[in-house]
Amino acid sequence: MNDSASHSRQTAETKLKELKRRLLEISDLNAAGSVLSWDQATYMPDGGAAARGRQGAVLRRLAHERLIDPELGRLLDELRPYAESLPADSDDARLIRVAHRDFDKAVKLPAEFVARANEHGAASYDAWTRARPANDFAAMRPFLEKTIEISREYANYYAPYEHIADPMVDDADEGMTTALIRNLFDALRAELVPMVRAIADQPPADDSCLRVSFAETEQLSFSRDVVGRLGYDFNRGRLDKTLHPFCTKFAADDVRITTRVRDNDLGDAMFSTIHEAGHALYELGVSADLEGTPLGSGTSSGVHESQSRLWENVVARSLPFWAHFYPELQRTFPDQFTSVPLDTFYRAINKVERSLIRTDADEVTYNLHVMLRFELELNLLEGKLRVQDLPEAWRAGMQSALGVTPPDDRDGCLQDVHWYSGWIGGSFQSYTIGNILSAQFYAAAVKAHPDIPREVGNGSFGTLHAWLRENIYRHGRKFPPNELIARATGTPMSMEPYLGYLRTKYGALYRLPAQAS
Amino acid sequence: MNDSASHSRQTAETKLKELKRRLLEISDLNAAGSVLSWDQATYMPDGGAAARGRQGAVLRRLAHERLIDPELGRLLDELRPYAESLPADSDDARLIRVAHRDFDKAVKLPAEFVARANEHGAASYDAWTRARPANDFAAMRPFLEKTIEISREYANYYAPYEHIADPMVDDADEGMTTALIRNLFDALRAELVPMVRAIADQPPADDSCLRVSFAETEQLSFSRDVVGRLGYDFNRGRLDKTLHPFCTKFAADDVRITTRVRDNDLGDAMFSTIHEAGHALYELGVSADLEGTPLGSGTSSGVHESQSRLWENVVARSLPFWAHFYPELQRTFPDQFTSVPLDTFYRAINKVERSLIRTDADEVTYNLHVMLRFELELNLLEGKLRVQDLPEAWRAGMQSALGVTPPDDRDGCLQDVHWYSGWIGGSFQSYTIGNILSAQFYAAAVKAHPDIPREVGNGSFGTLHAWLRENIYRHGRKFPPNELIARATGTPMSMEPYLGYLRTKYGALYRLPAQAS
Repeated sequence: MNDSASHSRQTAETKLKELKRRLLEISDLNAAGSVLSWDQATYMPDGGAAARGRQGAVLRRLAHERLIDPELGRLLDELRPYAESLPADSDDARLIRVAHRDFDKAVKLPAEFVARANEHGAASYDAWTRARPANDFAAMRPFLEKTIEISREYANYYAPYEHIADPMVDDADEGMTTALIRNLFDALRAELVPMVRAIADQPPADDSCLRVSFAETEQLSFSRDVVGRLGYDFNRGRLDKTLHPFCTKFAADDVRITTRVRDNDLGDAMFSTIHEAGHALYELGVSADLEGTPLGSGTSSGVHESQSRLWENVVARSLPFWAHFYPELQRTFPDQFTSVPLDTFYRAINKVERSLIRTDADEVTYNLHVMLRFELELNLLEGKLRVQDLPEAWRAGMQSALGVTPPDDRDGCLQDVHWYSGWIGGSFQSYTIGNILSAQFYAAAVKAHPDIPREVGNGSFGTLHAWLRENIYRHGRKFPPNELIARATGTPMSMEPYLGYLRTKYGALYRLPAQAS
Repeated sequence: MNDSASHSRQTAETKLKELKRRLLEISDLNAAGSVLSWDQATYMPDGGAAARGRQGAVLRRLAHERLIDPELGRLLDELRPYAESLPADSDDARLIRVAHRDFDKAVKLPAEFVARANEHGAASYDAWTRARPANDFAAMRPFLEKTIEISREYANYYAPYEHIADPMVDDADEGMTTALIRNLFDALRAELVPMVRAIADQPPADDSCLRVSFAETEQLSFSRDVVGRLGYDFNRGRLDKTLHPFCTKFAADDVRITTRVRDNDLGDAMFSTIHEAGHALYELGVSADLEGTPLGSGTSSGVHESQSRLWENVVARSLPFWAHFYPELQRTFPDQFTSVPLDTFYRAINKVERSLIRTDADEVTYNLHVMLRFELELNLLEGKLRVQDLPEAWRAGMQSALGVTPPDDRDGCLQDVHWYSGWIGGSFQSYTIGNILSAQFYAAAVKAHPDIPREVGNGSFGTLHAWLRENIYRHGRKFPPNELIARATGTPMSMEPYLGYLRTKYGALYRLPAQAS
């Protein structure tokens, strides 16, 4: 290296250090904000709410100001040649790319818009918390109309686009577009609808064993024990109760999960806990080298969801898993399960039914709930569907996709918080992408280590966990989702493993129609 | 008002609004930092520690940057004439005065010094958490030597002063000086030493009823019930467990307390909880109008401590209080207390003894522990006492003041965290000032409402709480301590009510010498 190259490298390294310092401060402010939100959801007394909203907003604003600081943009521009001089797969090259992407996205939004959108989101959410129990869609109409306006305005800061939902889809699942998802969903729907129809024509599974009374303490301790065995480290996390389960990250070694407990529904706490633990295993598996940078968390909503679904469904709703854990569950709840055979329990936790509520849906029909929402939000954003006509469109869509019609909006188009938090578009597709990828990743892991299913049957998850950590978790956001999927599985995203998984599993549980292909 | 006066008032009001906006942001950043600290002490998994230290430091730094912003100083200067034009007792006049005081203090410290002192404090505290259990004073010597240097440097930023500890004393207890406290302590010591000697010459009280086993759940629920009855509102706070009890404020309506539970020491959780609830009642009683300003919390460490002590000792270690609550305690712990008479229990919770540990000391000897620390820290700061000679000076001081000598440094000069957190001077005197004021405030309340002792005997605290709220709590930091004391009690701080309280109470429990006066 000659003197001048050495000098420019040194300069670049100084700049990179400065970049990382700035990114770490942004990360720390966001983490502090997450602590405030976690506290609000877990332990905060009612009296704290008003100030807490304001305090969280201060932290978000300070983080945002730092993210759009022109000095950060200048640093990133200056570091571009350096990034190009590095090996394409190096952490630093990828860090500069991702930080640039985040910066470019953030600077396109006027501060006034961000403030207005956040304010609207808070007001809309607040109104929804009252409107849903009151079954009062009319109260939400003006909010939802404004939400659509704001989301359109948001999209337009990223014009040109092919479809108005594309900017929101790209935020959640980089590299995906509305058109790609529509194609994917059309193909998936063609397979799922006959599958659901065939299942619904048969006698329903008996899940009454899950509907008796289960003491909260034992539900929580069993869930805690299970996720500990899956690899969730309670020295690096914790489990608390909240109204809605979630996973949140404060640091590489502090990733927490929450759950809720229903006395007469064993599955709710248990599968929610495992689901959130799946998200947490991903975050806890990100390489410590990436902490405090934009690479230090999962790469996309869809890939994240694949991990919660992989552990919740592919692993923890499988027969081998329960062959191992069911005796423990029977010891925990002897009155409830001593006389219930494993097969009955296994059928109960995999009961497929046409139901009204997405979050309670089984893994087969779940996708139909998602697709309905995705279609409706595209129609709203495109202006093809008026807000006032949404309840009717929802009922028609439910009848067509699932064969059931909600009796009211509370369990219809008011059920999900997403549209009522101030944004519409781009937040539902990730659930189904996650389902598809969960099977694709699991299949790749099993291909590499054919012993995995047998190990799961022994209550041993180390090989699977290690494969996921090596091929997915440790990379954080270093690779965009499509690149990560191809690296990990050898192919682009494909729904074949998922369809194969559903056909095999539900073919054993129910009679299924001959394959369409 | 002529046009020009009207214009300048409008300008002043705009500036005042801007001042409050800036102060609110500082307050919010500090509150967010407090949430992070609370979480660290209550629920954070071990893995979170490293990042949490860094995140808390970011918030403190951002708050400090805003506090020393020259623009804030300019605003305060410009608002001075406006403050002088307002009624002297108006909230805004006082706010401008206090904010100016805080600004003037903060700008005197170079940023480099603040960073260095904080870094040293964290390292020293960390070393102490290992050195104390290891009884390793030698390990703390270099830290303590540096702490003394740093504290001297701190004091010198506020030169000139009469005594080098004065700036630290003034931080905690505005208006107090080392000389004033020395005089106060000399007079108090002259009364306490013979009182302790007389008590120690008599047979010790039997506190064995407090030393049997008490289930944690019942200890916590009884404590929770008691502080609720005192007026602590669980919609505006909560009680959690920590290693060391504390009170922390996140907002006017979110003031939390913590306690610890020892299986074989009933008093620990109960009186700690009441003590912290006393701090919390003060903070919860500050007028909501002052929220988010520097006036929005208690006025000084000593006055704060007076409230924890008033509720813990004057109220909750009194005979009328237990005449009401003891039957409830007996129902909570029937095995432990059914055969223990109230008088035995009352004597047990007021047992006076010569002991080694300040935080476990009774309310009479407690002050002797404090005075020893105050004298030693003055000697260290003055350079009269070398750090290497501290353990011996501690032993000699304990022997002289309390008649006992610690067998090791763990229970000697290593016992308190204060000196090992990076600062020395100004943090112990508030405990004894608090004891003195607790009796003075209580006497004033009883003078205004002679029914208070009878109400306490009925488990009713509304009149006392209302008097404290009206005369102390609601003012927050609006009045400096000396002004607040004079307004609330009609006289300056005086130790006569405290001595009267001790003589009456302990005269009934023990034979005491004839009064010195």
